[in-house]
Amino acid sequence: MKIKYELIKESNRARLGKLVTNHGTFDTPMFMPVGTLANVKLLTPEELKEAGSAVILSNTYHLWLRPGEDIVSKAGGLHKFMNYNGPILTDCGGFQVFSLIKNKEKDITEEGVHFKSHIDGRNLFLTPELSIQIQNKLDSDIAMSFDECIPFPATYEYAKKSTERTLRWAKRGKNAFNNDNQSLFGIVQGGAYKDLRKYSALETVKMDFEGYSIGGTSVGEDKETMYNMVDWAIKYLPKDKPRYLMGVGEPIDLLEGIERGVDMFDCVLPTRIARHANAFTLDGKINLRNAKFKEDFSPIDKECDCYTCKHYSKAYVRHLFVAGESLGGRLLSIHNIRFLIKMMENVRNSLKNDKFEEFKELFIKRYYK
Amino acid sequence: MKIKYELIKESNRARLGKLVTNHGTFDTPMFMPVGTLANVKLLTPEELKEAGSAVILSNTYHLWLRPGEDIVSKAGGLHKFMNYNGPILTDCGGFQVFSLIKNKEKDITEEGVHFKSHIDGRNLFLTPELSIQIQNKLDSDIAMSFDECIPFPATYEYAKKSTERTLRWAKRGKNAFNNDNQSLFGIVQGGAYKDLRKYSALETVKMDFEGYSIGGTSVGEDKETMYNMVDWAIKYLPKDKPRYLMGVGEPIDLLEGIERGVDMFDCVLPTRIARHANAFTLDGKINLRNAKFKEDFSPIDKECDCYTCKHYSKAYVRHLFVAGESLGGRLLSIHNIRFLIKMMENVRNSLKNDKFEEFKELFIKRYYK
Repeated sequence: MKIKYELIKESNRARLGKLVTNHGTFDTPMFMPVGTLANVKLLTPEELKEAGSAVILSNTYHLWLRPGEDIVSKAGGLHKFMNYNGPILTDCGGFQVFSLIKNKEKDITEEGVHFKSHIDGRNLFLTPELSIQIQNKLDSDIAMSFDECIPFPATYEYAKKSTERTLRWAKRGKNAFNNDNQSLFGIVQGGAYKDLRKYSALETVKMDFEGYSIGGTSVGEDKETMYNMVDWAIKYLPKDKPRYLMGVGEPIDLLEGIERGVDMFDCVLPTRIARHANAFTLDGKINLRNAKFKEDFSPIDKECDCYTCKHYSKAYVRHLFVAGESLGGRLLSIHNIRFLIKMMENVRNSLKNDKFEEFKELFIKRYYK
Repeated sequence: MKIKYELIKESNRARLGKLVTNHGTFDTPMFMPVGTLANVKLLTPEELKEAGSAVILSNTYHLWLRPGEDIVSKAGGLHKFMNYNGPILTDCGGFQVFSLIKNKEKDITEEGVHFKSHIDGRNLFLTPELSIQIQNKLDSDIAMSFDECIPFPATYEYAKKSTERTLRWAKRGKNAFNNDNQSLFGIVQGGAYKDLRKYSALETVKMDFEGYSIGGTSVGEDKETMYNMVDWAIKYLPKDKPRYLMGVGEPIDLLEGIERGVDMFDCVLPTRIARHANAFTLDGKINLRNAKFKEDFSPIDKECDCYTCKHYSKAYVRHLFVAGESLGGRLLSIHNIRFLIKMMENVRNSLKNDKFEEFKELFIKRYYK
């Protein structure tokens, strides 16, 4: 079965919706924790569930290299392999080629991308068809078209050439796609150019995907440009399909994205900063290594209902980090994921009550004060 | 309240018993996982409980350095600090002085041990009184007398001098002890000398502790000597007090210890080897990095009822280790702890049914085949 998206309510451009997948239904807007290598680092699926996480993302590029899509497939697919029975979305590998591989070690051609593995330097060749075949085998609920993530800044000429090629890649991937229980999203590129974003959106929509991602918005440009990229593309996306803003997890960016009509987000941010002792709180980010928490026996966030905040103090979590104990990263990962998931719950409630703008303003005022 | 030990049944020298503490009652023989720095690495108390773990050990030396006993005390004691409401035993720091500090960086005097911190090299001075004071503040259920762990081999002269000093230290620690909700164990030393083990046991027992540890048996000597050390000491320990063999966790050593009348064991082994991809199975230890597990979708141990074996395959755990994902160490830590705890359950059942020797023989035959 393909996914089904239901638009429940619009509040200006913001959307309240529901996504039905073969592994469960979740409400949107939704944040997706990242399980790069078939696990959200340090956490079990049960912990994700307890934190309210309803859908996760896993990385095609990484799973292709380790353990390889064939092993995952023989295990019965990614859900079985990693013991996660909720919805899984896989990306296409395009972003990893952009972010993990140095320019001189990759060659982007019409056929695909030649590059050297970031692990052992061996030569790899990823094509739109291969990206799709890998994802078909991983058997995630939602797969992504293979794209090129355009660097920022890029010349208009390069952005145009790349955007057109990504459209051809999307078509090739769609033709190669072969998994009735999986849905495929197209990715809008276009760099930081308004007309290219529009062109990419319109042409991608013509191919009729089950959902649409907006890619390449979080690769180093300023926030204003990032939000513009969303604006320029999203107005051309159909209302009856989910929209996914890739690689975005900063609270303000989630809110700005939601305001513009985005339904789904993913980012390594909550878990990555957790492993570096950083925790989200409604009053902004705090670093648990800070000496001021040495004898602070209160929870990380008094208003948080996560496992960590229910059971542990700042002083204890600080001790774990200072002593180099990985349990610290685990406890903060739980907290940070819960923070963003709960934020999404609050966003959805505010949308139900036509109070999203008010919620957004108050949240930002307090968090970024 | 002090602990209460009840000897339920003897089977030759092996003992079935029960230990009542302020934080719960557990049956003996029992294995105690080690939570060095106020956490069993990577695991939560809930996971320990789910694995059947009934009591843990935490390290006085490590907690003295980080976060410091005063912070733990201000948190309300170690149980509250680390969110663990089961029984906790703390060691005395003597073993860490032996194992973590180089000979040229320590000076053992009558008064105590001068040495340099293994973390930052600063000068430290640990005395019998200080070890007890730290443990009183940590507020564990069971504290240990401060001892010197005698190196192996050691001359008779050195072993005698050290054993006598440890006895004087035990007396000083007992005099300094000041916590009505905590029990104190004496530690039998004596090195690898029969008469010194006897002397140490008799003299330690004269001081009337709530339990007795046998120390210094696992510091590099051969197994036969190790078992001899237990034999030489244990016959002089009273039957109505618990006996604890320190730092021992190899399955065969647990069985040999139990056969000789030991009630309690602790060791970092199950969790340390777990973080290096090693798992206990009834057919011996396996290393999950082994390529032969690449496509092995069966659990680590088909007969194991732990969380890991219920939900994950060898192929998945192998993938986590190969990809450098810490969840692998977490999953194997759960498994290895459960393995030893379940082994203790089976040992106790065999004692109930007067079949310990049979159990031991079959276990060893299969495990070490």
